[in-house]
Amino acid sequence: MKMLRRILLATAICGIAVLVPRRTIAQTPTDPLPSWNEGAAKKSIIDFVSKVTKAGDKNFVPVAERIATFDNDGTLWCEQPIPVQLHFALDRVKALAPQHPEWKEREPFASLLKGDLKTAAAGGDRAILELFIATHTGMTTIEFEQIVKDWLASAKHPKFEKPYTECVYQPMLEVLAYLRANGFKTYIVSGGGIEFMRPWAEQVYGIPPEQVIGSSIKTRFEMRDGKPVLVRLPELNFIDDKGGKPVGINQHIGRRPLMAFGNSDGDKQMLEYTQGGAAGRFMLLVLHDDAAREYAYGPALGLPDVKLGAFTPALYEQAKTAGWTVVSMKNDWKRIFSSQK
Amino acid sequence: MKMLRRILLATAICGIAVLVPRRTIAQTPTDPLPSWNEGAAKKSIIDFVSKVTKAGDKNFVPVAERIATFDNDGTLWCEQPIPVQLHFALDRVKALAPQHPEWKEREPFASLLKGDLKTAAAGGDRAILELFIATHTGMTTIEFEQIVKDWLASAKHPKFEKPYTECVYQPMLEVLAYLRANGFKTYIVSGGGIEFMRPWAEQVYGIPPEQVIGSSIKTRFEMRDGKPVLVRLPELNFIDDKGGKPVGINQHIGRRPLMAFGNSDGDKQMLEYTQGGAAGRFMLLVLHDDAAREYAYGPALGLPDVKLGAFTPALYEQAKTAGWTVVSMKNDWKRIFSSQK
Repeated sequence: MKMLRRILLATAICGIAVLVPRRTIAQTPTDPLPSWNEGAAKKSIIDFVSKVTKAGDKNFVPVAERIATFDNDGTLWCEQPIPVQLHFALDRVKALAPQHPEWKEREPFASLLKGDLKTAAAGGDRAILELFIATHTGMTTIEFEQIVKDWLASAKHPKFEKPYTECVYQPMLEVLAYLRANGFKTYIVSGGGIEFMRPWAEQVYGIPPEQVIGSSIKTRFEMRDGKPVLVRLPELNFIDDKGGKPVGINQHIGRRPLMAFGNSDGDKQMLEYTQGGAAGRFMLLVLHDDAAREYAYGPALGLPDVKLGAFTPALYEQAKTAGWTVVSMKNDWKRIFSSQK
Repeated sequence: MKMLRRILLATAICGIAVLVPRRTIAQTPTDPLPSWNEGAAKKSIIDFVSKVTKAGDKNFVPVAERIATFDNDGTLWCEQPIPVQLHFALDRVKALAPQHPEWKEREPFASLLKGDLKTAAAGGDRAILELFIATHTGMTTIEFEQIVKDWLASAKHPKFEKPYTECVYQPMLEVLAYLRANGFKTYIVSGGGIEFMRPWAEQVYGIPPEQVIGSSIKTRFEMRDGKPVLVRLPELNFIDDKGGKPVGINQHIGRRPLMAFGNSDGDKQMLEYTQGGAAGRFMLLVLHDDAAREYAYGPALGLPDVKLGAFTPALYEQAKTAGWTVVSMKNDWKRIFSSQK
């Protein structure tokens, strides 16, 4: 009885957890990546994280240097049948058309308004730039943030019929959470617009605005009605793709990543730059080979090229030679989205 | 006795601290800003931090939004008699001169090599740009980092005869530490070069590279001898001064600061942008009025204008009207540098 009273007293003061035998916890470790099938890809992630976080290990890396960078389109969320930001731009053209009667006669807008993407795309990079300038500039940063939020609240993915913010890869959400639980700072490093991703990245990925790196247009500080604002200008500032990714990483972070995650040729230089660091590093590419549950595409699989998602045979070869992890969505992931049980 | 045994038991299990009476701790609070004299400036900082960190207070701000931005030159470290980075550039001209015999005939280098800053400066912005391109570009980012570190290890401030990294303001170091202890993320937002500050900001200020924002030149990703590097190009990328400061803050952080600290007209827009946020904000300017212990300069004091440190009478008026804290180094600071007892 005396012992029982002591235990009760100690428990009341210290809280229940103190007296739970520690061995019980150690014997039933929680799987940090439950949506991943057992296999080489999952093992490579857990082995690497265990190694760099183990005090005394020769591969140990201090918390301050645990930087992990993630491409967004096709790595964290679905980029097919068209990139989400392009869908946003097309919807904005429709919404803004009444204020722009001249668009009926002007490309790429005339074709876009008829739903003819192919003719619109014939204008090449210049047409795409015109489309983005018409839909992404002229307003303040605060106004643009609201436009993005409003659109995301109503837009749906054409195949999955869910908001885009639910078309994010559950296995990658688990990697993000697992890394943060191990002291990593997780960053997005995307070709997409920095101001297009920030309004929702914190809620959806747990990645705060200051850890989002992306392409950008120039902005200008000015006073409007006595209020200090930043106005979005019709001028490119930075393209955060291919060789731009290491440049963006250096500009924003100032350190080489310890881990980098991508899915296409646009991520090649980010992975090379990561691997070029002094200590052991981890590089991963997601291969879209799951036509049933998501999409299958890219020349690496002998499938048609899709500009944004080009995973070329050469990149596949480089990944094998350099020891990068390649994830088969079909074989390595138990489920793609959180809604799939 | 029974009570004593219970207390001993509980203490043994939970650790001593649990039973230390809380009032004792509360009665002897540690002064978070010991190098500040009691007065309105010190009080304004502590009052603001107490308010925004007190759970339940109407001014409470979540940790994620506790962003504080600090100018560097003249706000965190000494910028007189010439800015530190200019001293660095001049020393680099001397070090590189043997490889550039043509500099003997070419301005601004010819005058600089004779120690004639006045004639060199007559070339205006173009001369300054030439000086910076000649001394700050052409190498990789890693090489530049080493050049900066080597220089700082040997260079000394002409008046204080100490390394520049010891000519940092002790009262501001205390503010940085106090804010971080209260959940703030502290950032540098400086007109100085981002890559000039990062090599030492973590050690000297406790500010990691990813929280340093500054002016920059463009870089290019390339493979050199099979290694992925970033090469510093002779082309300006961004000037992080005046209206550029809010732009840089938005680019890197994506949130408005909660607190902003500066010392000149170059910080005006950063303070305006900070104050333009929705909730209560805190803005502070350091006034250099201490000729004995540091320097006294600036038109606000009726003293000569010094380009980098211009604290104009108009800015002084604006600070008073807008409720910004103005710090008199002479009256508000017990000591300027940690070496002054």
